[in-house]
Amino acid sequence: MFEAAEVGRKLSKREYKAQVPRLRSELLDAQQQLRRAPFPVIVLFAGVDTAGKGETVNLLNEWMDPRWIVTRGYMDPSSDERERPRLWRYWRDLPLRGRIALFLSAWYSSPIRNRVAGRITKAEFDHLLDQVSAFEHALADDGAVILKFWMHLSKAAQKKRLKSFEKDPLQRWRVTRAQWKHWRMFGKFVSAADRAIGRTSTDHAPWYIVEGEDEEYRAIVVGTELRDAIRRGLERARANQPQPRVSTKKDQNRPISAIKRVERKFNVLENLNLSQQLSDKRFKTRLAEQQGRLNGLQRQAHQQGVSTIVVFEGWDASGKGGAIRRVTAALDARDYDVIPVAAPTDEERAHHYLWRFWRHLSRAGRMTIFDRSWYGRVLVERVEGLASEAEYMRAYGEINHFEEQLVSHGMVIVKFWMHISKNEQLRRFRDRSRTSYKKWKITKEDWRNRTRWADYTVAVNDMVARTSTRIAPWALIPGNDKNFARVKVLTTLADRLAERLRK
Amino acid sequence: MFEAAEVGRKLSKREYKAQVPRLRSELLDAQQQLRRAPFPVIVLFAGVDTAGKGETVNLLNEWMDPRWIVTRGYMDPSSDERERPRLWRYWRDLPLRGRIALFLSAWYSSPIRNRVAGRITKAEFDHLLDQVSAFEHALADDGAVILKFWMHLSKAAQKKRLKSFEKDPLQRWRVTRAQWKHWRMFGKFVSAADRAIGRTSTDHAPWYIVEGEDEEYRAIVVGTELRDAIRRGLERARANQPQPRVSTKKDQNRPISAIKRVERKFNVLENLNLSQQLSDKRFKTRLAEQQGRLNGLQRQAHQQGVSTIVVFEGWDASGKGGAIRRVTAALDARDYDVIPVAAPTDEERAHHYLWRFWRHLSRAGRMTIFDRSWYGRVLVERVEGLASEAEYMRAYGEINHFEEQLVSHGMVIVKFWMHISKNEQLRRFRDRSRTSYKKWKITKEDWRNRTRWADYTVAVNDMVARTSTRIAPWALIPGNDKNFARVKVLTTLADRLAERLRK
Repeated sequence: MFEAAEVGRKLSKREYKAQVPRLRSELLDAQQQLRRAPFPVIVLFAGVDTAGKGETVNLLNEWMDPRWIVTRGYMDPSSDERERPRLWRYWRDLPLRGRIALFLSAWYSSPIRNRVAGRITKAEFDHLLDQVSAFEHALADDGAVILKFWMHLSKAAQKKRLKSFEKDPLQRWRVTRAQWKHWRMFGKFVSAADRAIGRTSTDHAPWYIVEGEDEEYRAIVVGTELRDAIRRGLERARANQPQPRVSTKKDQNRPISAIKRVERKFNVLENLNLSQQLSDKRFKTRLAEQQGRLNGLQRQAHQQGVSTIVVFEGWDASGKGGAIRRVTAALDARDYDVIPVAAPTDEERAHHYLWRFWRHLSRAGRMTIFDRSWYGRVLVERVEGLASEAEYMRAYGEINHFEEQLVSHGMVIVKFWMHISKNEQLRRFRDRSRTSYKKWKITKEDWRNRTRWADYTVAVNDMVARTSTRIAPWALIPGNDKNFARVKVLTTLADRLAERLRK
Repeated sequence: MFEAAEVGRKLSKREYKAQVPRLRSELLDAQQQLRRAPFPVIVLFAGVDTAGKGETVNLLNEWMDPRWIVTRGYMDPSSDERERPRLWRYWRDLPLRGRIALFLSAWYSSPIRNRVAGRITKAEFDHLLDQVSAFEHALADDGAVILKFWMHLSKAAQKKRLKSFEKDPLQRWRVTRAQWKHWRMFGKFVSAADRAIGRTSTDHAPWYIVEGEDEEYRAIVVGTELRDAIRRGLERARANQPQPRVSTKKDQNRPISAIKRVERKFNVLENLNLSQQLSDKRFKTRLAEQQGRLNGLQRQAHQQGVSTIVVFEGWDASGKGGAIRRVTAALDARDYDVIPVAAPTDEERAHHYLWRFWRHLSRAGRMTIFDRSWYGRVLVERVEGLASEAEYMRAYGEINHFEEQLVSHGMVIVKFWMHISKNEQLRRFRDRSRTSYKKWKITKEDWRNRTRWADYTVAVNDMVARTSTRIAPWALIPGNDKNFARVKVLTTLADRLAERLRK
């Protein structure tokens, strides 16, 4: 794959000087237009040591306006980073729409290094690459323009360069033992890179192999590809503008059923036995018992650094808040976070929809409770027409992939759907309207959502069918009786945590 | 100070049961009103081990709606936290306006622990307390309601409690060696706490000493104080509403000079020699020389974990961007961040104005370049009437305090005011309007700001006079000649960094 990048391409200083002013002003112009565009540009730099990755990134910062560029180079993860899934630190650094990110030694770096050092098998390597690919896919689907540059040098050229650096007192610092060690492993490195590039070069996140020997040549190539990619992104965005993502008012009022209704033989919600109850007396005993159990398990989880992610979804007035309070009452206040998920802030809106959840992943050993969650994408956003069919359909896969990363990092995910009947909801709405200190809990929107019960039912069924995975199954909680529901939530949570801790 | 909290106050179960329902609903009601209020509530819990800090925090989460409560307990700082000034992690966790934060073992914890263990002198202890006090002061000035609870037990009561925990199989885990060690140091601990409380109990952030022996008593006391504090905050906010913070349009157009003009004997800007120049030839040599020097210094800084904060302020078109590019061109892309400061996002607006700068402090060993900065508060916000006189006047002190924390954490701060004459600005504006690829740089706002030249001059003079401190002096850069300015910036930055590294 790299032969074409070992032929010694060069650009004369004269040609370079003739081309640069125009390229710079075109890049600047593209960057200025990008600032108002609804997508970010993500540029990755990887490749052979001394092939000019850092220099090229510096040059781009010099050519363009660095205020709208995020530049990040990654070193060994900090303790905060190690306590989260591998991709967490990259999610955190993703650029806002309208900006450019230049990433050095980012998500390809450690998989390749680990493969070269023989610390992971070929199968594990492929799995990491697929994970990265899915990540890029999700970003690209959200509109991001992604370019990946592999800066290459032949083994001989690299040797020559290292030697010449060693001779130059101003550059000597750049050559360390590690560099020569890498050089001796050139063959292994190139073969791992070959596999990585082959497996992850897609139309939405293509690799460009750039010969890095000649400074002028590589600068023009990278600059030109970047300019063209931004322009293509801008054109695509312009072409999409007549069809805004958020559907029109009219559309929003059309029920899902009219848009697309898949006949369902099996409605998981209908199969729930809502008549299950627990007397107040039994409730008291069982609650104390399960809270004590959860407390012990969470202390153990804390010591072992096992994090738990708890998701609460459910109908309005289905008792999410009450259940959450019974859970938190069992925990040490230092050990949990409750994250209420309401409308996104503007920073959150300027990112992929999963970004706001990544940012809330806590340090190891804690419990993070989401009151509503990323499932909003396939529930309210679907029903209200805020996400297009394409968007919510691909969200199932993105969500499964997100949860898989949490679980493979060692976290536990417990997802509750709090279910009540339509009549029970009515009863509770009325009760809330009547009780002074409960009134704030009930809004016009709740009544409006109620008229969409059928649409939500379709959405919930689809959600459960598509995202109840072996590693992160949904627990459907019969919620008509609050006592029963609360104890069921506690028991399920404790069971899942116990199961994880036994491993 | 603690005698009054060692008398064994109790509340009978009956009294408790009679009081709780009403208190809960009042707390819930206050919390609901708070959600729409323009200030956050910050509650600190400190005190003697086993005096019920954690239990009280849990109870408040149970009594109120935990979705609008941020609960944080602090353990030993992570590596990410250690690489920033001490208060960074607390800034990061500050609640949005309208929310309540319950902080356990927060900013008083390590000063007191370190003092008890004899790791810091009395003077150092006092200094840390003063730092914390200034922090609370800044938050309170911004509207935050702050309450601090010291949960107390007598030495005998604590012993009794530890013993009883040890006997209870369900509570035994809570008693560790550390607990007994703390108990033996009770006297020292109480004397350090006494000093801390005395020195930091202010009207805007009062301490409440709560006897922690009786569960019911302490719950009612804390709940009641919290309810009252929220109510007082709400009242104050209501009373302030007729005088909104942002002044009216008319006010904005009134020049500062008309509002308040201090006669100035000494105008620092006028004393700058703007005629200094550098020929293109000399510029080239000096630039390369200083960039090389900066590169070497920054590598050294990286190795030593020394972070540099660079602030660029200056007139529109004074060459901030060009100077920044000359700086970044000298650095490894992995070693710096450029933070453009534009209008705050809504998350940023929902915090103290310094919050957005705290969040950008980078890991150790990096250079963070702010293109405009926290000085906006005393420049554009002052001139445009977006900050009241009280707000910008106290900002000087807050800013000095902020910078002092960075410096005492080992960071270097270099602040540039890029200065050009009014005529030179006009020339540059015209040039920008004429050149196609520079047009985006010039906006109507730039022309409008220009009409405020005199007001800005007053603001800049005040800023320099009040915030040019020994530890973080302003460098005023004569900017009429770009060559001269750029080399001056690089030289100054390199000098300051070199000076720090020699230490």
